[in-house]
Parts: sequence; C-alpha cells; structure tokens
Amino acid sequence: MKGVIASIIPSAIIDDAAHDILPGDVYAASWALAGYWRLYPPDTVHVAVVDPGVGSARRALALEIDRRVIIAPDNGIITRVLMQCSPSHTVEIRNTSVIRADSSATFHGRDVFAPAAGHIASGMPLEELGPLAADPVVLPIAVPVHDGASITGSIIHIDRFGNLASNIPGDVIRGGHVALNGSARISVLRTYSDAREGDCVALVGSHGFVEVAIRGGSAAEALSVGMGAVIVWSPAPLDPRTWNP
Amino acid sequence: MKGVIASIIPSAIIDDAAHDILPGDVYAASWALAGYWRLYPPDTVHVAVVDPGVGSARRALALEIDRRVIIAPDNGIITRVLMQCSPSHTVEIRNTSVIRADSSATFHGRDVFAPAAGHIASGMPLEELGPLAADPVVLPIAVPVHDGASITGSIIHIDRFGNLASNIPGDVIRGGHVALNGSARISVLRTYSDAREGDCVALVGSHGFVEVAIRGGSAAEALSVGMGAVIVWSPAPLDPRTWNP
Amino acid sequence: MKGVIASIIPSAIIDDAAHDILPGDVYAASWALAGYWRLYPPDTVHVAVVDPGVGSARRALALEIDRRVIIAPDNGIITRVLMQCSPSHTVEIRNTSVIRADSSATFHGRDVFAPAAGHIASGMPLEELGPLAADPVVLPIAVPVHDGASITGSIIHIDRFGNLASNIPGDVIRGGHVALNGSARISVLRTYSDAREGDCVALVGSHGFVEVAIRGGSAAEALSVGMGAVIVWSPAPLDPRTWNP
Repeated sequence: MKGVIASIIPSAIIDDAAHDILPGDVYAASWALAGYWRLYPPDTVHVAVVDPGVGSARRALALEIDRRVIIAPDNGIITRVLMQCSPSHTVEIRNTSVIRADSSATFHGRDVFAPAAGHIASGMPLEELGPLAADPVVLPIAVPVHDGASITGSIIHIDRFGNLASNIPGDVIRGGHVALNGSARISVLRTYSDAREGDCVALVGSHGFVEVAIRGGSAAEALSVGMGAVIVWSPAPLDPRTWNP
Repeated sequence: MKGVIASIIPSAIIDDAAHDILPGDVYAASWALAGYWRLYPPDTVHVAVVDPGVGSARRALALEIDRRVIIAPDNGIITRVLMQCSPSHTVEIRNTSVIRADSSATFHGRDVFAPAAGHIASGMPLEELGPLAADPVVLPIAVPVHDGASITGSIIHIDRFGNLASNIPGDVIRGGHVALNGSARISVLRTYSDAREGDCVALVGSHGFVEVAIRGGSAAEALSVGMGAVIVWSPAPLDPRTWNP
Repeated sequence: MKGVIASIIPSAIIDDAAHDILPGDVYAASWALAGYWRLYPPDTVHVAVVDPGVGSARRALALEIDRRVIIAPDNGIITRVLMQCSPSHTVEIRNTSVIRADSSATFHGRDVFAPAAGHIASGMPLEELGPLAADPVVLPIAVPVHDGASITGSIIHIDRFGNLASNIPGDVIRGGHVALNGSARISVLRTYSDAREGDCVALVGSHGFVEVAIRGGSAAEALSVGMGAVIVWSPAPLDPRTWNP
C-alpha cells in the first residue's frame, strides 16, 4: 500500500498509525481510528483498512470530515468517528482511473484504498472519486445506562497492556468505584500510579472513558475479563478493606 | 539501520515494508519482496535484510533492476524478484569508504546494507559500491506440474491471516477446484466473500497465485496444512454436496 | 503521538526506532536507545516513552546531548545513554503552553513528550521547555568483575532472536570461552557463521558486548537462560570435545 501511495505522490510522508489490530477486528479498528484521526493535522488523509468483506459488494468510501479525509471500506470502521462529528460529504470510490487496473478481488487496500489516498493527497477533489454515498454502515454500539445513581456500561476495548476500556465517559463520573461482572470492586483513582504495584485501579483512560487497569500487569488476564463484560460505576467511595478483588 | 541511512541522507523517506517476517525466513522474505518492490516508484532503494549467514563469506549485493535498486545479502532473498525480471547490473558491496569503519560481524544491516542504501539514495553510482558480481544465489523453487488436465503444485507461503498461497499461477486456471494433500476439496471462487463465514475457499490471491483461505478464519490452522503441502487444481467444478472438507 | 508531532511540524520525518519492547520494560528500552541514538544525525529528536510511572510525580525530561535531543520520562530509560556521554544540559518539561491542554493522567507520550518533541524539532530552545533538572534517575546496572584472569558478568538483554547479551565489553576479551550459569561452556568465535547450524556460539554482538547465540535458533530457549544469568569469560580455549553443552 505504501508503495502504491509513493508511486502517485513520492513526497508523501506515510505513518503507520495502528498496525497491531487483529485480523478482521473492525471494532478495535474503529476504536483506534477514533482515538487518533483528529490528532493529525488538517489535510491528513487517513487510510483505514480492516476489511474482512473484501471482494463483496460492500462499498469503498471516502469522507471529508473536519478538514481531514478518511478512506475506508463501508463496514462500520468509521462508526466511532461519526459519533464525534459528521462528514461534510461522503463519496463511493468508483473512478476506474483511480482504482488499479489489474485490481485483485482480495487486496483492495493495495488496489482501491491506497490509490484513492494517493490521488486525494495529490490534490484530487473528493468528488472525482465517485458519486455521493448515503447511509454508511454503522456498527451497533453498546450505550451505558444511567439510572440516576449508578451507570451500567460494558467493556468495549482491551489494549495491548491488558487495560479494560469501558463505554462510560470519564466526564460524567467523579471518584466512587466500579464493579466488574458483579464481583470485583475497584476504586476510581486519578492515574495508574495512585495504585500500588499489582493492584487494580479504575481511572479515566487516554480515550476519555473509564478503564480498569492493574499497575504493572494485565487486568484482562488477572481478572479474566473480556470484551462485553458488565461494568457498573457507583459514586460511593469503596471501603478500603474491600479495595481490591 | 534507519539512523545510519538518515545520517547519510537526512531527507530520505524510509518505509517499513515488511517487518513481520520470522527470523531467518529467506523464503518468506523473497515472497514479500517480490510482492511489493515494483509498486514503489522508480529510484526507490530497497534494503532487504533477512540474513542468517551474516559474518560468513556470503556476498553483499546491490542490483539495478527496472529503475529501482535492491540491496541484499547474496542468500537467495532476490530469487522471486529475478523470476519477474533481470537486473541491468549487479555489484558486490566492497567499498570500504561506504561500509561502516567499526563494522561488526553480526549486524551487516546496520554496517553494510544501510550505508550502501544511503549512498545510493544520495546519488552514488552503483559501480562505486564494488565490482560486478555474477551468479547470485537463487533458492530452489518448487515449480507446478501441468499434465494437460490438472496442475499439481505446492503451498509456498502462509500469510499472517493463515491463508495458504500456492505456486500455481492464477492466470492459467479458471473455476474448478483444488485438493489439498489429497483430501480436502475446495471450489475455486472469485473472492473471500463468495464463501460463507467459516467456509473454505480457493481463489487467486493478491500476489497472483492460487491460494486457499477460510472466510473469517485461518486456513492453516483449520486444515492443519503447512509449507510444502501438495495442492492439485482440476478444472471440474465441485459437486456442491462435497463442497467443503 | 505521531499525529501530535505532525500537527506541530507537518514536515517532520518520524521513524519508529524500537517498537518491540515489552510493556514497562525500562531496561530493554535503555538498551535499545543506547544502541541507536547516535546513529541518527545531529539535530535528531528522540522520544523514548516506556513509562510505567505515568501520572506519578516522576519528571518529564529533555536532554541536549552530543548534538541530539532526547525526550523521556525520568525513570532510568536514559541510563545507558549517560554511560556513553554526558548531556550538555537537561531540563524538566513544565511549560504549559507545550503540554496539551486536555492532558490525560495516563498517556503522557501523547500529551507531554510528543508535543515537547514537536516544539524542539520546530526550533524551540530547550530552555523554554522548563527549568534545569539535576540528578536524573539512573537504573542500577550490573557491572562485570575482572579478577585478573576471568571476567564474571551477567545476561542483561535478550533480543527477539533469543540471543543473550551480557555486560562484558567485547574490547577486553580475545578468544577463550564463556560459561553460562556454571554449566554450558561455549567457545568465543568471530561470528554466527563460524558455528555449525544449531550450535552455540559466543561472540561480540552488534552493541559491542559479549553475547551467546545459537546459529539458526534461540539460545534463550535452547539453554533455558534468562535475564541475570551469570556468564564467566575465561581466556583458555575450549577443548573441542567439550565444545557444546
């Protein structure tokens, strides 16, 4: 893909932004993309290709959004970006002078998305890629439930440190504690370092959501907790004697 | 290696093209290199260092080929590139003003190949690297056998998705089915998405060869098939009742 | 982090120098950084973030050293760099116009170190980042003991090939053999290729220290040797009959 982009625009600076996503994990890709796309400067072209449906009828999309362009298969990978803001317009990539002539049915990253990115980075207007596209696919996203006192959410991402990120936004909580799968109860602190080595801690992670971590270890392994686990935040501080599971 | 190149030519744009090859796997490196080297624009300098024989008498080569330069140990890593086209000339890297003075016996990537790449990218003519070199090492490559009706080949590459690539060129087959190790029989379709989730599919992969995949899974794991497995393509369509192993 | 840097200085060329370090392994990070930082050209800004103490009171440092700048948490990651040469000056990053306003308590790579790197690369003088900082944290480093005849050291790094690097400098030994954990005895040769496939070899590795390797294999696995293992070098050549463990 980098070679194809460099062939179109040799001066392009190409970054690897998130190459540790497991094959086919569109949810993880959506989470990663939402975390970094606006940290890059205006005019950045993002190419996000986790594409288990390659070769099917799924569309190839290009979005102009907050002065950046995102190029991706229409499989929900942009779901979390769309929760942050709306594209000014979205087209389907169909221009056959952009798509590689000897296009394969199995590697659209190289044959469709990379050439589109190269041409956009070279100044091609988005409209030339193809017709306007409506109703991009969005993934079903678990939404936390606020009952006035506590908030019930779920674990929606596990990073390479084994930290468990939830869908509970950090800006609606203050202190208190969380319960994981109805058992482990963990105080909400400010940062990893407020816990002792090996202790569990809940905190607001770098994406802005409540997460559970173990200082110097993997919370996912230690607590045997995976995607979809139920997490409940309560405002009451935890009795220190029951601090850690 | 990137630091050495940047020290010689700070404006160089350096890409990581294939850093997931297992230590010492020259065959996988040869496959990867052949897949991407011509997708990069003319004047690209490729440095391909999978080098289990570092420190031995094996030569360090620089090739000018189809307007690119490839720099690599003479251990067969360029085998599949040479099957695609021929170098205009090939030299052995011997120039001691190029090789790092405090050169180690264990890391020629840093001490020989990267400096050579930096100097070539800076405009040094290939001839200045050293004398012309004949007869580069080529790896023995399994060749498929066509008996008029069927084609018998072998699995020559397994990618990180667990897809099984064979040495049967995609442009000599049409439809039909393949048999793996004499048992599993799999229809040739156009793309992953023509199979149901979890089903086996044979298709022409992105490198242009017949491969066997499982939609949403690893064919290598599910079929317990490894490198060198025998694959036979036959033109007869598969009886749907025996579709999947 | 790359996005943040690119937002400050879009023309920056950003390299991934060492992204295979395990979470929290400050020793491995210190080893890697010491191996490459001076191979990059003057004016390079190195950002080294292995940061298990993120969010604690540990300082964020920027060092000017041998015409490069190193930006890192004050947790000992620069220990091995400081063994090579001394910084001309060191400051603590405190400038709140540099640190990201919505700074998190868990990802200072993105919120503190990357912005500091971007501003330094853009020409900001080091002094503007914050006040001079004395006494950076240095890790306790095992030092080899020379008793006149033999040298007793320890294994201080294991690379991705399974090679075992010791703290015995290569320039004080010549030939002889090493003993690992008092049992395995291994001849010191010049390079991997001087051993037969599958044989153990000791040699001076690319960082300049004595290391133990297995040609075509992982010494760490084959010998069941880990960090901290005792290695003793003796000048006597090994009896060929006891060559290999």
